[in-house]
Amino acid sequence: MAAAAPPPAPTEPPTTMPETALPRHPVFTRVRLATPSDVPYIHKLMHQMAVFERLTHLFTATESSYSSTLFSPDNKPFHSFTVLILEVSRNPFTDTQFDNDPCYKPVTRVVNLDLPIDDPEKESFRTRHGNEVFVAGFVLFFPNYSTFLGKPGFYVEDLFVRDSYRRKGFGKMLLTAVAKQAVKMGYGRVEWVVLDWNANAIKFYEDMGAKILQEWRLCRLTGENLEAYGATD
Amino acid sequence: MAAAAPPPAPTEPPTTMPETALPRHPVFTRVRLATPSDVPYIHKLMHQMAVFERLTHLFTATESSYSSTLFSPDNKPFHSFTVLILEVSRNPFTDTQFDNDPCYKPVTRVVNLDLPIDDPEKESFRTRHGNEVFVAGFVLFFPNYSTFLGKPGFYVEDLFVRDSYRRKGFGKMLLTAVAKQAVKMGYGRVEWVVLDWNANAIKFYEDMGAKILQEWRLCRLTGENLEAYGATD
Repeated sequence: MAAAAPPPAPTEPPTTMPETALPRHPVFTRVRLATPSDVPYIHKLMHQMAVFERLTHLFTATESSYSSTLFSPDNKPFHSFTVLILEVSRNPFTDTQFDNDPCYKPVTRVVNLDLPIDDPEKESFRTRHGNEVFVAGFVLFFPNYSTFLGKPGFYVEDLFVRDSYRRKGFGKMLLTAVAKQAVKMGYGRVEWVVLDWNANAIKFYEDMGAKILQEWRLCRLTGENLEAYGATD
Repeated sequence: MAAAAPPPAPTEPPTTMPETALPRHPVFTRVRLATPSDVPYIHKLMHQMAVFERLTHLFTATESSYSSTLFSPDNKPFHSFTVLILEVSRNPFTDTQFDNDPCYKPVTRVVNLDLPIDDPEKESFRTRHGNEVFVAGFVLFFPNYSTFLGKPGFYVEDLFVRDSYRRKGFGKMLLTAVAKQAVKMGYGRVEWVVLDWNANAIKFYEDMGAKILQEWRLCRLTGENLEAYGATD
């Protein structure tokens, strides 16, 4: 019987051990609505995304611009710009401040990882919600509208998971939260954009059942050209 | 002197007549916010657009779905789904019901055309606003958000001008109204999509200062696939 043998070192299980008995590293995750006190995290995450996309020269947002545009009194979650935050912890969540939010009940889940997460930036993303809780990512979305369906949908403007937390299903967790909310509200679509050379992302989206609309191109009027056009008759 | 010659028939001016003296057909135009009583026109216009795009098999919207989604009490113009209506008349507008709208001051303009407009569908689009006023088109748009700018913008979902009123600058009038409103509200962008084979439209948009984003593709999760994805963990 295996029980008679000395216990294996936790980091080096014998290859004959059944997979269910492998040492695991539970990670407690929570997807919840962002609040104004999340603005510093949101700004840091957005800036990281700009770095990742090599587009920092186009990044002009400030904490103040996020505060005034994402958390104005008019800004009703799911009816306007909405941010969901992904928090992770090695311990169960002990705070209850989000549990009775009438707008959105947080989604919690335990993920078992083979290796612990090494997060060199964790001090910058430590929250005040309980014991060792860190912000790992976010999704920003807002309602759009289909005149053909006569129904709203959601447009996902940005979804970002910090480097240390990638390839663990956390991005899917955020996108699923948006899809669930769309279904709950009777909305007809969830839409977003992808770069045409990003074959991995396209495959991921197609595998989840999304359709890539090959013929449509985004048109953008911005800056001086917008001001000039708005000034014409 | 030309004044001594018999007056030319109004429909056949001599080629030597100065252009400013050509007989013109003034058309009075007004761009205003849509109201719930515009829903029947909006539905007919949207259906015509589906016919024009040969996509009637995808058109499932009803007057009732437009009423509940575009004119719900939560739906604050320019902060959610917004429809501007283009009305035209051979006579000046005499009603004043829209003039003091705190949300949007209607934009009126007189356009001089060389030929009168022949509108075989006018009875279906006759409004109750004064003398011989007809709905000629609409634009539907809503706020979107740029995380890089930290600012909202507007996304134009649909712009449609009825067949009898095309190629007279009315589409530009509607798009300009959206751009003006964006500038007025301090918004950073106006965006929309175009089909990649529609070279005329692309040229028109580029000429007005818009940039066509060639690398981005729209992704859409809808119908059963959306419901299935929303049901996953």
